[in-house]
Amino acid sequence: MTTARQKVRTQAALAKAASHTLVTMSADQKNRALWAFSEALLENQEVLIEANRVDVDSARNAGMSGPLLKRLSFTKDSIRNACQGLQTLVSLPDPIGNILEMRRRPNGLLIGKMRVPLGVVGMIYESRPNVTVDAIGLCLKTSNSVILKGGSEALRTNAAIVEIAKRAIEQAGIPADAIQFISDTDREAAQEMMALYEYIDLLIPRGGSSLIRFVKENAKVPVIETGVGNCHIYVDLSAEPATARRIVINAKTSNPAVCNAAEKLLIHRAVAPSLLPVIVNDLTERGVEVRGCKEALKLCPGLVLAEEGDWETEYLDLIMAVKVVEDIDEAIAHINRYGTGHSEAIVTADYENAWKFLNDVDAAAVYVNASTRFTDGFEFGLGAEVGISTQKLHARGPMGLEELTTTKYIVFGNGQIR
Amino acid sequence: MTTARQKVRTQAALAKAASHTLVTMSADQKNRALWAFSEALLENQEVLIEANRVDVDSARNAGMSGPLLKRLSFTKDSIRNACQGLQTLVSLPDPIGNILEMRRRPNGLLIGKMRVPLGVVGMIYESRPNVTVDAIGLCLKTSNSVILKGGSEALRTNAAIVEIAKRAIEQAGIPADAIQFISDTDREAAQEMMALYEYIDLLIPRGGSSLIRFVKENAKVPVIETGVGNCHIYVDLSAEPATARRIVINAKTSNPAVCNAAEKLLIHRAVAPSLLPVIVNDLTERGVEVRGCKEALKLCPGLVLAEEGDWETEYLDLIMAVKVVEDIDEAIAHINRYGTGHSEAIVTADYENAWKFLNDVDAAAVYVNASTRFTDGFEFGLGAEVGISTQKLHARGPMGLEELTTTKYIVFGNGQIR
Repeated sequence: MTTARQKVRTQAALAKAASHTLVTMSADQKNRALWAFSEALLENQEVLIEANRVDVDSARNAGMSGPLLKRLSFTKDSIRNACQGLQTLVSLPDPIGNILEMRRRPNGLLIGKMRVPLGVVGMIYESRPNVTVDAIGLCLKTSNSVILKGGSEALRTNAAIVEIAKRAIEQAGIPADAIQFISDTDREAAQEMMALYEYIDLLIPRGGSSLIRFVKENAKVPVIETGVGNCHIYVDLSAEPATARRIVINAKTSNPAVCNAAEKLLIHRAVAPSLLPVIVNDLTERGVEVRGCKEALKLCPGLVLAEEGDWETEYLDLIMAVKVVEDIDEAIAHINRYGTGHSEAIVTADYENAWKFLNDVDAAAVYVNASTRFTDGFEFGLGAEVGISTQKLHARGPMGLEELTTTKYIVFGNGQIR
Repeated sequence: MTTARQKVRTQAALAKAASHTLVTMSADQKNRALWAFSEALLENQEVLIEANRVDVDSARNAGMSGPLLKRLSFTKDSIRNACQGLQTLVSLPDPIGNILEMRRRPNGLLIGKMRVPLGVVGMIYESRPNVTVDAIGLCLKTSNSVILKGGSEALRTNAAIVEIAKRAIEQAGIPADAIQFISDTDREAAQEMMALYEYIDLLIPRGGSSLIRFVKENAKVPVIETGVGNCHIYVDLSAEPATARRIVINAKTSNPAVCNAAEKLLIHRAVAPSLLPVIVNDLTERGVEVRGCKEALKLCPGLVLAEEGDWETEYLDLIMAVKVVEDIDEAIAHINRYGTGHSEAIVTADYENAWKFLNDVDAAAVYVNASTRFTDGFEFGLGAEVGISTQKLHARGPMGLEELTTTKYIVFGNGQIR
């Protein structure tokens, strides 16, 4: 076994050992640690911003593009937002130890479910330093240890965040080993994490589709797939034009580098002649490259022709592909075929079509008359999130506190046999 | 691709297509189909019993042992129990389409979760023909298609059950393709199922530990690990002797071939001299081979010495290993080290120790003063079960209706952007 692998294994064993202590921590103690972590981030803003500047500079020199650079940056605003997330976590009830669905069976047995931590959560992720803060906060609140393997591009920022976190929680009486940071950035360290099912209870890959596929196909540790978002807005026949325009502009341009940004626009044939040119104009004015199906090109001659590959691509950039559809059925069929099961929206004034879309689209989050950009833990009221699951098992959509727990049945008897 | 693989792939595609129709079925329609299936099983009892006789005879000729033969047999009683399970399913509320946790966000968005089917559930399992009935019933009730690959030893029984089921549901207006039976019994068919993540949403292996490990380590389809049960009874210092004896006898001998049967007895040092010889006598009188640690052997000289391997073995037979422990802490540490996270029980009259055991033992079901034999879907009030999960993700313990569903977020807006 190589040194890199051995080091990961040692860290994972430390995380597992710490998880046994974490279970015994009271909600108060965990909340004090979260608060201390938030305070420490604010106090060390300059250190964090400086570490991030070095990361951003070297990424820019390596040729990273605009939206991705923006995603990597950790500014005063990002720090304030991250702290707000931690403070929201403090205010949320502690899920651990709660007893659910306690029932008396006919034989007198009293059977319920107790909410318990998973144990050790591994994260393999790319850029976005606030993921580091959120993951630490959520795992701490749920009494899980966390093993963090961020991308090389954010190494200095993540290392600085983790150092601050370990110091803060230790001062609050929680073992610093509950947070493990993998500083090796090569795939061998990741591969070792993926194999360590004796220590790691859940692995969450978060990043580009190739990272996620790599983890999904190779991990022996249980995985929750996250975040690839080929999201659609379908503008229905009855859509209110101003609402459609506002939602499309917001979903595409407010933050094109994140997974809940819209990548595709589907528009009903009957409204396309009047509405599509206006929307395309809205988008191009904001620097979006619009690609279209043949019919869209007839209505808006300036567009690039979309290829088959466009329909399945998550651009994460100022690009949008547009398709004119016959009706809501074609829209739903297209979404269920090409979508990644992340976030899908309809703009409509029609009651039946709203319900049809909600029922028939198979995705983690389905919207009527709102931007897909709301799909995240903070906006959904979960405090923060550790990722957005696009799989069906265990967790679907933004994963907050409950998604980082499991349950066990507890059974009270007085001598029952079967 | 071999013919066996191609056939599995075709069947999986049919199951997926049928799952789209299943979603549109009303609860009434599904209940009528369940009822029809139950009636048809009763009407065709002779066919089923005859098919099972052939399976049991050839298993006996191949040298299958007593408890396993019992597990394979499908008698009038098993049929009646299976039908009772189906009828309980009819009486349970349909989980599909329910909306959970609908909340208004500060920006006016209304966000809830809708319960939806998984899609296609694959089962790879060994013996126990009632698993076939339960799996069909649970999947039907939850609008999932099911692909069944049973063991070769029960091939004729399972085929007869599936034929009856397909005919019954088709007459009730549900596509027969929703139930697929894999008649190839080799590993190649199983391997193809394990790779088909475009068609199969969840794979449940149910059987011996080597089958489960094989599926867990090789499947690309998400898997829920089930059922290996190295279950313990810990007899505490304060245990009421008669209760301890009754629970140990029941947990070991009432059905030794199932996963919730106890395999190990841990006993507090202070009560071992008086109680252990009595319990060992209870067990040997009932044909149990008792193996013991050195200390147990001093108290009961006739025992076989247990080896290290005994502590981690699921016998599924009339064998039990006994260990004398210093106190509850040693008992819990032993269980958390050697247990498989299935069902664990303490016999005690002590309030603190009862809570300590419930909190600190890491298993799907933890009991105070009751037999581990209750861990199943019917006994827990779930109607029937598709297996007992021993993993922490998605489902833990007996898996009933809810465990065969997922949710999607539904979001109602009136033009919200972010």
